[in-house]
Amino acid sequence: MSGTALERLRARRAAVGSALCLGIDPHPDALPDGLEPTVEGIEAFARGLIEAAAPHASAVKINVAFFEAFGSPGWAALERTRADVPRDVPCILDAKRGDIASSAERYAAALLGHLDADGVTVSPYLGEDAVEPFLATGDRLVYVLARTSNPSAARFQSLPANGEPIHLHVARWAAERWTDGRVGLVVGATAPDELARLRETVPGPAFLVPGVGAQGGDAGAAARAADGTWSPGLVNVSRAIALASRGNDWRAAAAAAASVQSALLSGAVLHSEASPVRTAKIGGI
Amino acid sequence: MSGTALERLRARRAAVGSALCLGIDPHPDALPDGLEPTVEGIEAFARGLIEAAAPHASAVKINVAFFEAFGSPGWAALERTRADVPRDVPCILDAKRGDIASSAERYAAALLGHLDADGVTVSPYLGEDAVEPFLATGDRLVYVLARTSNPSAARFQSLPANGEPIHLHVARWAAERWTDGRVGLVVGATAPDELARLRETVPGPAFLVPGVGAQGGDAGAAARAADGTWSPGLVNVSRAIALASRGNDWRAAAAAAASVQSALLSGAVLHSEASPVRTAKIGGI
Repeated sequence: MSGTALERLRARRAAVGSALCLGIDPHPDALPDGLEPTVEGIEAFARGLIEAAAPHASAVKINVAFFEAFGSPGWAALERTRADVPRDVPCILDAKRGDIASSAERYAAALLGHLDADGVTVSPYLGEDAVEPFLATGDRLVYVLARTSNPSAARFQSLPANGEPIHLHVARWAAERWTDGRVGLVVGATAPDELARLRETVPGPAFLVPGVGAQGGDAGAAARAADGTWSPGLVNVSRAIALASRGNDWRAAAAAAASVQSALLSGAVLHSEASPVRTAKIGGI
Repeated sequence: MSGTALERLRARRAAVGSALCLGIDPHPDALPDGLEPTVEGIEAFARGLIEAAAPHASAVKINVAFFEAFGSPGWAALERTRADVPRDVPCILDAKRGDIASSAERYAAALLGHLDADGVTVSPYLGEDAVEPFLATGDRLVYVLARTSNPSAARFQSLPANGEPIHLHVARWAAERWTDGRVGLVVGATAPDELARLRETVPGPAFLVPGVGAQGGDAGAAARAADGTWSPGLVNVSRAIALASRGNDWRAAAAAAASVQSALLSGAVLHSEASPVRTAKIGGI
């Protein structure tokens, strides 16, 4: 594919018409029937999910942790899995790396160079030294963690500094510093008030929104907040698709669930105020 | 080796008598003569440094980024390099991971399980969800990033919340939450005032102190602040040892530099107020 990652994302979003981001987080203890809790098992699951569900998604987000758990064989599986993502579907590697300059440059070499990701997630705790090296690869996307979706996210992210929570400082800093649309923010759907306030405060950057579905966040609110004026946002769905069935029909179930999720996160539904949508009940998750 | 990582660290510290932590950060652009800028080159460099310098150190800290840059072959080199660390020298994997519960559990499986590290570094940005899974492997050490040594560290770490910088909140939180000596803090020597205040505020936890030598921090101040009342601290030295010579004599030069650094960070020197020591000039770094 030619062009920048942002151009590929815009094109894909236009083709699919939905903010759905397919999350690939294969835990060996949560595989469908017939797959072993091994590196081969998680790779087969990831491959099957990508084949079944990526056609309905604007992007695929692969969580590096689930491959890294197996060491070098896991990283080899990650390399093959990343290559499985169709070239017209932007691939985000969710690695949440956060290290200082030369180390961050080496992580960028791994994720953007070696694995050729279209985008990555990074932690802001070390400031711009931890972000700039990822932007040095000039055409890729970087999503900075602002307000995450986990239960203890507020511990530091919501500490008030000068009257505003830290996550708002992070968002403002990123939006003022990088204005070309390549830097987005990770904002969890599990904190709807923070999500709305962040979108109001920084209209520019795209949001990558985890936490809908199994984690309880509202998909409609997530999709309405995700798009920035600079670039299209993404709403990540993992378990509601991956675990739509744990039986032998898991591929077909994942395809069907992805189709439903894609529609729920499409503009048609989003712009209808009369149809509040939730994904939490899909597939019993 | 039997016992917990903390017991191994205490025993090693008693045997060596110095807070020196040997940092392994092999950048392909900074290898000595005769080594190629490849994964084989960085592995050979790491192995040579460990053989030459680990005898003088209380611990070895391997920065995962420099191996991960090469993908699965890099991770395979990391596996061999970690195995090269003598079993009586605690091995810390500096990975700065920071992800939510199930992802953090998978990173712990990689670093503490698969690679069998004695300790790891983790980011506090996501709160306890990002730390607890590493403590679930009951006998290992976890160093939480508090105040890092890089130029943009203060961007968020020094934002004042309720009158105190964020890094002090992180330190207090960690010291109040985990009191058994297994959780330490990463505090850079490049911020001496913050280092002193942190030690005064939280006397218990060990500090892992980067930033002396090439980054400009004072080794004596670092070593005086490193030890906690719960467990022995560590002062990391990388470049002053690794780049003591870029010629063919690099192994011997690293051994000699490690011996000097170990002495500088030993109790004998530390307890002499009359001899302020710096490592910045060792080896021309």
